[in-house]
Amino acid sequence: MTALHPFDPITPGEIQLAVKILEAAFPGVSLRYKKIDVNEPLKREVVPYIEAERSGKPLPAAPTRLLQVLFHRLDNGAFYKALLNAGSRSIVYAKQLPKEVQGPVDADELIEIEQLCLNHPAVQAEIAKMQLPPGVTVCNDPWIYGTDDPKETRRLFQCYMYVMTTDHPQNNHYSAPCKFSPVFDALTRELVRMDYLPGGVDAQITETQPWKVVETIQYAHDLLTEPLRTDLKPYIVQQPEGPSFNVQGNLVSWQKWKFHVGFNTREGLVIYNTTYDGRNVFYRLSVSEMTVPYGDPRAPYHRKQAFDVGDVGFGITANQLSLGCDCLGHIKYFDGYRSDSKGNPVQLKNVICLHEEDNGLQHKHTNYRTGAATVVRNRQLVVQMICTVSNYEYIFAFIFDQAANIELEVRATGILSTVPFDNEKFGTTVPWGTNVGPGVMAPFHQHLFSFRIDPALDGFKNTVYYEDSVPMPEDENNPYLVGYTTEQTVLRTSGSANTSVERHRVFKIRNDACINPITYKPVAYKLQTSPSQMLLASNRSFGYKRAEFATKPIWVTKYQDDELYAAGEFTNQSKQSEGVEKWVKRNDPVENEDLVLWHTFGLTHNPRVEDFPVMPVERVSVMLKPDGFFTKNPALDVPASTQSFNRSTLHPEPAACCAPAKVKL
Amino acid sequence: MTALHPFDPITPGEIQLAVKILEAAFPGVSLRYKKIDVNEPLKREVVPYIEAERSGKPLPAAPTRLLQVLFHRLDNGAFYKALLNAGSRSIVYAKQLPKEVQGPVDADELIEIEQLCLNHPAVQAEIAKMQLPPGVTVCNDPWIYGTDDPKETRRLFQCYMYVMTTDHPQNNHYSAPCKFSPVFDALTRELVRMDYLPGGVDAQITETQPWKVVETIQYAHDLLTEPLRTDLKPYIVQQPEGPSFNVQGNLVSWQKWKFHVGFNTREGLVIYNTTYDGRNVFYRLSVSEMTVPYGDPRAPYHRKQAFDVGDVGFGITANQLSLGCDCLGHIKYFDGYRSDSKGNPVQLKNVICLHEEDNGLQHKHTNYRTGAATVVRNRQLVVQMICTVSNYEYIFAFIFDQAANIELEVRATGILSTVPFDNEKFGTTVPWGTNVGPGVMAPFHQHLFSFRIDPALDGFKNTVYYEDSVPMPEDENNPYLVGYTTEQTVLRTSGSANTSVERHRVFKIRNDACINPITYKPVAYKLQTSPSQMLLASNRSFGYKRAEFATKPIWVTKYQDDELYAAGEFTNQSKQSEGVEKWVKRNDPVENEDLVLWHTFGLTHNPRVEDFPVMPVERVSVMLKPDGFFTKNPALDVPASTQSFNRSTLHPEPAACCAPAKVKL
Repeated sequence: MTALHPFDPITPGEIQLAVKILEAAFPGVSLRYKKIDVNEPLKREVVPYIEAERSGKPLPAAPTRLLQVLFHRLDNGAFYKALLNAGSRSIVYAKQLPKEVQGPVDADELIEIEQLCLNHPAVQAEIAKMQLPPGVTVCNDPWIYGTDDPKETRRLFQCYMYVMTTDHPQNNHYSAPCKFSPVFDALTRELVRMDYLPGGVDAQITETQPWKVVETIQYAHDLLTEPLRTDLKPYIVQQPEGPSFNVQGNLVSWQKWKFHVGFNTREGLVIYNTTYDGRNVFYRLSVSEMTVPYGDPRAPYHRKQAFDVGDVGFGITANQLSLGCDCLGHIKYFDGYRSDSKGNPVQLKNVICLHEEDNGLQHKHTNYRTGAATVVRNRQLVVQMICTVSNYEYIFAFIFDQAANIELEVRATGILSTVPFDNEKFGTTVPWGTNVGPGVMAPFHQHLFSFRIDPALDGFKNTVYYEDSVPMPEDENNPYLVGYTTEQTVLRTSGSANTSVERHRVFKIRNDACINPITYKPVAYKLQTSPSQMLLASNRSFGYKRAEFATKPIWVTKYQDDELYAAGEFTNQSKQSEGVEKWVKRNDPVENEDLVLWHTFGLTHNPRVEDFPVMPVERVSVMLKPDGFFTKNPALDVPASTQSFNRSTLHPEPAACCAPAKVKL
Repeated sequence: MTALHPFDPITPGEIQLAVKILEAAFPGVSLRYKKIDVNEPLKREVVPYIEAERSGKPLPAAPTRLLQVLFHRLDNGAFYKALLNAGSRSIVYAKQLPKEVQGPVDADELIEIEQLCLNHPAVQAEIAKMQLPPGVTVCNDPWIYGTDDPKETRRLFQCYMYVMTTDHPQNNHYSAPCKFSPVFDALTRELVRMDYLPGGVDAQITETQPWKVVETIQYAHDLLTEPLRTDLKPYIVQQPEGPSFNVQGNLVSWQKWKFHVGFNTREGLVIYNTTYDGRNVFYRLSVSEMTVPYGDPRAPYHRKQAFDVGDVGFGITANQLSLGCDCLGHIKYFDGYRSDSKGNPVQLKNVICLHEEDNGLQHKHTNYRTGAATVVRNRQLVVQMICTVSNYEYIFAFIFDQAANIELEVRATGILSTVPFDNEKFGTTVPWGTNVGPGVMAPFHQHLFSFRIDPALDGFKNTVYYEDSVPMPEDENNPYLVGYTTEQTVLRTSGSANTSVERHRVFKIRNDACINPITYKPVAYKLQTSPSQMLLASNRSFGYKRAEFATKPIWVTKYQDDELYAAGEFTNQSKQSEGVEKWVKRNDPVENEDLVLWHTFGLTHNPRVEDFPVMPVERVSVMLKPDGFFTKNPALDVPASTQSFNRSTLHPEPAACCAPAKVKL
């Protein structure tokens, strides 16, 4: 392998190249890099390339390798987006963006704001008023500043402050939130305002008072007061012959599947060019956006609405995974690279892992006459990424199986975002949150994800439709009144649609040009949606206007390069989203076209006290399943499950003396 | 252990005892036994017993051990139900049931009807008309005869006939259905009628014609024409120190959980008396019923509506599980017993299995400032049963975890129930089914399960309510229009309720007498429902009247002994269900009472061609999760996930010469 594949992530050399090109273009100007990454290759250039790969034909010219850079000029604060051609080492464009556009948080920025906040005299004055006992200190989480002023153009951070009751690397400061919250301008480094947080059941605020000592609820094992469980025995996954997968660069082959593991700083893990048994299935799969609006109606909490993909990025927040901690068995890791704010490449080690899992049975049938059984286990291939976005963790897994299904599983864990609450009096509660400890409350919130599906079922022109199950009319064709049938609705132009449990609505993607020889219908996959409550914020709120993707579960757009993110390119302090809701308005024809299907799903998360101080995973899953894509069960050729292969262990029976007595006759 | 526990399944000696008692009561009369099983012990007698067990106090008298017998008198065909007292070896009652009541299929009956059918001259005459080639034979599946005549009182079976193209113990006869279908009276053994099945797109029928040879779609590995996959490597679960569970008789202890594994011929697996860390959680959990109505409107398919629990029983259809096939790791099996039709005990070997699984991460948090991470894996305890009901398989698992969740996972697999269809002409389809092979179609159908939850949250008097997430009014308390809150609705009298995705409706069970010291609200569990399309049949159809439990997702009844089955005690050929829909009409008070929560959920299954000839598992899951039952995450004390404990393997990196080239500067 001597050349990069079009789907390969950025290399450290490319980061250095981008900086070199831009420094030459802006001589004498210091630049602060928000993002240096590959720009999505142009699909019209990629398709001939991957089609040649798939059919084993000579490769055409590689698609243009494009790099994308977001940066600030430090002399005047202007914010730029540049597109670079890595092959010709040239600038395609470098455009200054309007003043109200804010780029994402860069990885250095949070730490800088944290320090700026802690060192600021006004903050120190507030801390002093708290009269903390010796050894007790304060820290802060800078938060993305959700919009509430259409004229605001400053780059703002709202710092939420917490008491640190112990000097431990895993102290849970979220258990002890403070009641003041400074706002800083990240470019001028000025304190914009000192906000005070409500302490009671209403929006009333007071001056900072001496801190009342409370018990903090800890999650770290060595800070627990109770002993650890001692009765959990080891559970070891052994793969003595190695894994069933094969990895060449970022190309993964496993059980008739082939795909490229992509990685970028914004979406993190991306699955490119998925084929099954040599047939095209999906061009690109990713979690394109997520919004987390909070339901506490009081200032300044109304500004808590994170867009964790657009505001920060699942790539730069992806965890360095550890062998034997995050997965069991035989593990392959993939690294990524990001730039720091000075333009230096930073390796993101082990940010994606690949491993197999056994997920119970795949299919079984026993012929009851003969007792003869066919049993096949459900081996899966898991591609996983875990992101820490301040307090919260998200575990994303694309799971491939032998029956040609692809599951996107999301697990939410980590720590609730908490607020101070004077709840020592028995019965003190608020209707928009849950008391999770003394002096601390966790407000209701939602997590709404956008799963972007760029299909390629036996080709790049597909059609989306939905199918409802409905009773047949009560007429002569249905004399016993038990008949039911399906109704199909094709999305002929770009638009949105609702899920429906009552009608068992199923969304499908098909290729009208390829007819299944058994079903006589176009080959198709279905999207097993996760029907979810959509955004609860009023349609007159900024929270709604900024996240229109989260107001409908299904969107279909015609493919266009650069339309990758459901809420638009720049979400940080956005006034209005510029994403799917805008693109569908083109009313593009999307029947038998190159289209993109977007599925919004997620959680309305009204915290349980059991979610604190660290949350047991909450699991949501959506699946892509063949539905008339094959002519029969594609997993038929998976060998039988046998004891010689699986080597299970029988639990010993108790000695005969301990057996229950029989009733005597 | 010298005595049976109240929750222990029936013993062979008890089966023999029941026969002895009844033979003495019916001297000289031959009896055919449909069922001999334990009768559910009386809760008022059980509760003091298990409460004494829980608190370690001296045990009171054991609850009365009751046995239940269903039988026919062979002299006059009369159908009886008897209740026996095993302790006093006496009959509590033996009552003759009305003529229209049909008992469940017994395990010998299907085989008898199969033989009766094949040997009948009228059937042989039809077979002769098919002019089958040498070596090709016919078999049949006797089906439960769904009601379409309110006056019918005979015990009927409809035999669906299939061509056997090969003499192999796993030949898939469902690939070649015949077009005639005899109906037999199981008591008189008479042929009642020869039905003919439609062959085309409408209800038209014809006389039996010579069989057109078609390719049959096989699932058995040695009947496949394609080679098996050879690239799947072994995946072995090792538990070198044994399992983390402990089993004494049918009492299981694992990770603060304790429960009794129950088994009966009707429901199969039942989970009794679940406690967590010594606290009562659930008295009894079971799958109480399931109905499978078919959507093909044509006679005789309108009668296909199986009640697999009530008509047959998940206990008597439970598979004998095999080490290393159905589960991985360290496996404990439980046996059961049933009676045969003559009253002999039959051992049901290995019908329930118990094992641990690793299900990824339980919780994780990384402090991004320090990089320090807490990672805890999600160990689970799985109690599993697999049932073969003629063509179909159901895999039921109760899954316990360390965060005090209980999941009921259902996987549907096995073989679709098929019908003949002359589909050789391209494009021939019906609107109520899917072509799954040449000459064969799989009609749309539903699977609707009833999960019966008898709660005991910190005591036996509980309350059910539901909680909706709703936007706050747009008033002065919600100035930014992002506030949202919850609305609670308590079910004060027995009744039903709907799920609601739009309102994120969550059903909860609480104990009003126990207030959580952190949340200040009653301790509670929530039921994470699986919102599903309800029964599609018209409310004027027999299909609807027989399965009213399947028309609403939630029912709440006041506990009464003997109210165990959602569609009532006798479902076989029932005209009208006698279950939850009847019991809720008592309008019993259920607030702070001994109540039962019933959840109907399932699948609208419009077959995919990929579901044939054997179906990749379709998974549905519901969960019971603590919600304010504890004061914090109950899994905090689970030790960290470490490589020394888990012993994973690192995938080798490619040699340096194969590394992708760097872009040169």
